[in-house]
Parts: sequence; structure tokens; C-alpha cells
Amino acid sequence: MSKITLIPIGIIHSPFKSRNDAPIQPHFAKDICGTIELNPKFTPALKDLDGFSHITLIYHFHKSEGYKLEVKPFLDNHLRGLFATRSPNRPNPLGLSVVRLDKIESNILYIRDIDALDGTPLLDIKPFIPEFTNREEIRLGWINGKIKKRLNHEKI
Amino acid sequence: MSKITLIPIGIIHSPFKSRNDAPIQPHFAKDICGTIELNPKFTPALKDLDGFSHITLIYHFHKSEGYKLEVKPFLDNHLRGLFATRSPNRPNPLGLSVVRLDKIESNILYIRDIDALDGTPLLDIKPFIPEFTNREEIRLGWINGKIKKRLNHEKI
Repeated sequence: MSKITLIPIGIIHSPFKSRNDAPIQPHFAKDICGTIELNPKFTPALKDLDGFSHITLIYHFHKSEGYKLEVKPFLDNHLRGLFATRSPNRPNPLGLSVVRLDKIESNILYIRDIDALDGTPLLDIKPFIPEFTNREEIRLGWINGKIKKRLNHEKI
Repeated sequence: MSKITLIPIGIIHSPFKSRNDAPIQPHFAKDICGTIELNPKFTPALKDLDGFSHITLIYHFHKSEGYKLEVKPFLDNHLRGLFATRSPNRPNPLGLSVVRLDKIESNILYIRDIDALDGTPLLDIKPFIPEFTNREEIRLGWINGKIKKRLNHEKI
């Protein structure tokens, strides 16, 4: 299978300067403000995006170094299959976040709820269109209940 | 900004053999069955994934050829900024779908609601964890109402 080469379309700026600073799940990034500095050549592609309250970002986990097939997530005490986690150390270190879009000024997007590191290379922006909302039952596997407990500072 | 090189972790199989066959939005792919043939070296990374009802797939739009900064989406009659659409023709041709996970047998994942083309190179699998569900108001910009109309075969 052939290799795929991507080029950053911009840079994410956030308050998180190192992996120790960054929230472990987007739920913990609520109200964290950041910006996206888009390569100005793509500014026309932002047209109409300001109509959306939320946008999906795909980015490069640029601090990722290698991966293991099983990992112990921060939310858990057991080894879990890598693809059942959001660990940044993946075969293809791609990150995914849904953030709130506050405003766009030229090539700068003002966002909230960002959990990515400062300086993260951005690969794509898509409008966020909720799927399955109020439509289907969702099962959350090993994560079930753990996020709520963590938000309530309960023992996991 | 430096280039990023990715390698497929597997192949998506679906009934859609060409872009003309493929649904234009995941909403239209409901109940469409497909499989993921994961590179067997990654099989241990699937552990615990079967606890999740839905998974997020990031894949390569391998039939994408170039891009324009404004496009006329299938759901619409106006030119829209590329990043306000899900067009496969993007600076980094990355696709994103949330699908239902029916079962996993060794390195084969049986999925539903798949809208990707047959033969699509898969880049990442993440557990689907709903965000914003029942939590915040979502604005859908130019798409608002169009999906429902299309599902009801109304004029857009």
C-alpha cells in the first residue's frame, strides 16, 4: 500500500505548551480558547464556515514518537487496544477534535474547547454535523462512566 | 512547514465502486454494510474496541484529484468555501466517517453506515465518543435543513 504525503494548512495555537499540560480528553478542554492561523492562501476556503457553531479539526500529533499496540489510557488502569483509545502515539499520528468556532477574522479562526498542543500542524477543517444525536443508542466500551467520574473528581 | 507521511493500516470494503455510486453524506449511507480489512500486524490494537457501538474512521480520499477553494456542494446551488463542505477534493484529502461496529473477527471489522468507496485506504480507527450531544446548541450554517429535505426528497 502506497504512502500518503500531507502538508499542514495552518498551525493551532493553544495554552498547552507540552503534553503534560494538555487535557487528556476534549471534555476537559471545555472553554479553553485558542486560535488557528491558516496559511493565507487558503483564506477563500473559509467562506460560509462562520455559519457553523462547531468545526472538526484533523491535525498531526507532531510530538508523537512511535506506538505500542496496547496502551494504558490515563482514564484507566488496564492495558487497552490502541485503536480503542485516543492515545496520540498511533501508526498514523492523526488527532481529531470538535471545537466551537467563535469568529473568523481573515485567516485567523478563534476557537474554544481546544485540546491540542500549541504549535500543532493542522491538516483539515470540516464543518461539524452531529451524527447519531438522539437517534441511536451509543455504547462506550471501557470508557463508559469514566469521563463523568473524572469530571466529578471521583476515583476511577 | 514540513511534510507528513502516512501509511494505510488497512482497506475499507464497501458496495460503492465509483464516486458516482457513493452517498453524498453519511446520512444517506444508513444501514450500508461494509468491512475493514486491517493489516494483520495491527490486530492486537483492536482489543476492547468491540465494546464500542460506533467507531470513527479517518481515511484517504484516494480518488481525489486536486481541489478548488470554493465548491458547489451536491446539497446546494451556491459556491461554498471548501472548508465549509465535506468535498473529497481538499488540500489534504482526508475523509472522516462515524460507522456502526457490528463485530470483529480477527483482523476483519464488520461495519454499517459506511459511505466510503470500496478500496479506500484506512489511516486510523478511534472509538466514537459523542461530543456536545444534548449539551449545546449546534448551528449548521448553509447545510441547515438541507439534509432533512433531501432525505424527504424535497426540492432544495
